[in-house]
Amino acid sequence: MKINENFDELAESYLFAEVARRTKIFADAHPEVRIIKMGIGDVTLPLAPAVSDAMKKAADEMAVKETFKGYPEYEGYEFLRNAISGYYGSFGVSVSSDEIFVNDGAKSDCGNIGDIFSTDCTVLVTDPVYPVYVDTNIMAGRKIVYAPSTAENGFCAMPDDNVHADIIYLCSPNNPTGAAYTADQLKKWIEYAINNDAVILYDAAYEAFISDDLPRSIFAVEGARKCAIELCSLSKTAGFTGVRCGYTVIPKELTFDGHSIKDLWYRRQSSKFNGVSYPVQRAAEAVFSPEGQKQTRENIMYYKRNAELIAKTMEKLGITYTGGRNSPYIWITCPDGMGSWEFFDYLLEKANVVATPGEGFGKCGKGCMRFTSFADHSSTVEAMERIEKAVN
Amino acid sequence: MKINENFDELAESYLFAEVARRTKIFADAHPEVRIIKMGIGDVTLPLAPAVSDAMKKAADEMAVKETFKGYPEYEGYEFLRNAISGYYGSFGVSVSSDEIFVNDGAKSDCGNIGDIFSTDCTVLVTDPVYPVYVDTNIMAGRKIVYAPSTAENGFCAMPDDNVHADIIYLCSPNNPTGAAYTADQLKKWIEYAINNDAVILYDAAYEAFISDDLPRSIFAVEGARKCAIELCSLSKTAGFTGVRCGYTVIPKELTFDGHSIKDLWYRRQSSKFNGVSYPVQRAAEAVFSPEGQKQTRENIMYYKRNAELIAKTMEKLGITYTGGRNSPYIWITCPDGMGSWEFFDYLLEKANVVATPGEGFGKCGKGCMRFTSFADHSSTVEAMERIEKAVN
Repeated sequence: MKINENFDELAESYLFAEVARRTKIFADAHPEVRIIKMGIGDVTLPLAPAVSDAMKKAADEMAVKETFKGYPEYEGYEFLRNAISGYYGSFGVSVSSDEIFVNDGAKSDCGNIGDIFSTDCTVLVTDPVYPVYVDTNIMAGRKIVYAPSTAENGFCAMPDDNVHADIIYLCSPNNPTGAAYTADQLKKWIEYAINNDAVILYDAAYEAFISDDLPRSIFAVEGARKCAIELCSLSKTAGFTGVRCGYTVIPKELTFDGHSIKDLWYRRQSSKFNGVSYPVQRAAEAVFSPEGQKQTRENIMYYKRNAELIAKTMEKLGITYTGGRNSPYIWITCPDGMGSWEFFDYLLEKANVVATPGEGFGKCGKGCMRFTSFADHSSTVEAMERIEKAVN
Repeated sequence: MKINENFDELAESYLFAEVARRTKIFADAHPEVRIIKMGIGDVTLPLAPAVSDAMKKAADEMAVKETFKGYPEYEGYEFLRNAISGYYGSFGVSVSSDEIFVNDGAKSDCGNIGDIFSTDCTVLVTDPVYPVYVDTNIMAGRKIVYAPSTAENGFCAMPDDNVHADIIYLCSPNNPTGAAYTADQLKKWIEYAINNDAVILYDAAYEAFISDDLPRSIFAVEGARKCAIELCSLSKTAGFTGVRCGYTVIPKELTFDGHSIKDLWYRRQSSKFNGVSYPVQRAAEAVFSPEGQKQTRENIMYYKRNAELIAKTMEKLGITYTGGRNSPYIWITCPDGMGSWEFFDYLLEKANVVATPGEGFGKCGKGCMRFTSFADHSSTVEAMERIEKAVN
């Protein structure tokens, strides 16, 4: 019996463990200090009342024989797929409900979608990168190439015609850099994908944070339906990190090797997945109701105010940054040429603030730092005041 | 860009589509007839009140900042893993909570567990078989060998020392045959696995239907901790087909190639899975409370009464069958040497009852038929009366 040897190629991620270790040493030595965590990747505001109510109503239905629901449909209930299709329509993108696959969170599909592609495919990721894209493809034994996101390209990596790739992961607004692609930039990626007979896996998990005139879906851009799959999530849109629901859009037109990708994915899901919890799907449906939209938008605006404050503070301090406007993340170039961990220690000691060292997200993250907008507003205000004093 | 070519090797499953097609033709021709469906694989009784209440309480917690829960732990909340560990203890099996991985249903892990094993492994399944074991391994490109479950071995396939396998799927009580392994039989499989340096993937989804003195877990049998992984589910135990929660047990001792299988699986899950919905985990915890156990046991007993009635009817008719006693399934040898589809048509026409032709589950299912106990009790009574008349 042999295990999957590709697992031996995975790098151990020490990032969050090392952040925790250094923070603990400091906290133990300075018990009087209140450390503010600006590295939080999870949401902190509760579910909207409309969402919680819908879930409770569904739980009640499940306890009555006449309204009990057994196995859900693999691709999600039609009521939810219709609601998602309507949501796309609200920002001018046409996605039909039979192109939508409901899941238990975008991360699952992000990793599992690889099942339908050959392990011989070359994968392109932008650097810095959400580690899931890299690790899941290392597990499958795929070759990975990196497109750098740097200050020079505004942290929006662009395609290089000299590099071939079969599977392209793009995340916009980006985790960790907070940068968001314009329609023109996405057009270039779509052209590159079509020229390379490649598929784009477009992670739109943070689309709800976009307020400028930027695409909220890759399907807002011409040509995308012939080369792209979109992965989306309610985690950040509606605080669903603990509820677990997302969705994947696969256009009918998407074919490779004469195979409908939508049909292949349905085949994969029907063998390895049994659909999403009924009460969770009802909760998700409520997100897209007028009341749910109003309530969840308020939470998004709360985080966006935090992001704006962090961005303004960096501007005031003359620190180069990206994100913060159409994204919950603010990605900074550490001042005075400091390294990621050097600035991490500096912030911890001088401002008692914890952020996430950029080099944990890839080579191009060296000398960078990620702040998130998910902390309390009052904590964010205090953290920024402290950082202003410490850096000035 | 190449797709995963193994998908081309998958056989289309026409079983349930063909059952539906023939049923529809008959129903359209005989609108006055009430057809009774005895092929139902889904549960029909509602959730226990204790379970629904726990889910509603959790949904309330999620709507309040102080009790809101974000990303769950990849392996499941400790409160649930402790409850599952306690449940194992209730029938004398020792499984510690850090050997338990909570999931969104056993089917997911059943398919995904293959990620940690080499695609060079040879897979052994018993025939007839739950199609998920076969299809997910065809997708991975693995070679599959079959161990026949026939009338000769009481529909309990046993190992053949002349056949080598690396990964062995066993399901007991079995879907579709309803047969359940004794401790002695499992001991032989464990010896075979150890001799072949193989892993047993033990599907115990129907353990709650066992009432005779048979193992409810493979870990009740000596040696299993060195070679087995157990997959379990609340789908049939507590009517969770629409709620989605199961669990996988990987003993600490289980190692291959010098790798801890538990650690490999954690690595896989942390990259491709983000845990189970908090309200679902609270609902699952409630299943194991004294009240939840009492209520869910009543539902199991309801189905078991149906199963007993079906079994008794077959006995009365002199039809050879297995299952029905420690299982929700009754697997019969069609009378008078009829083929599966021949007897299907006979039952539909003469008794207006629909069951599932055994050959849909594999070569060895030819000439067999599966009945399930998940219909209403009154429908089950009526179906058996009609079958008695039709067959006599």
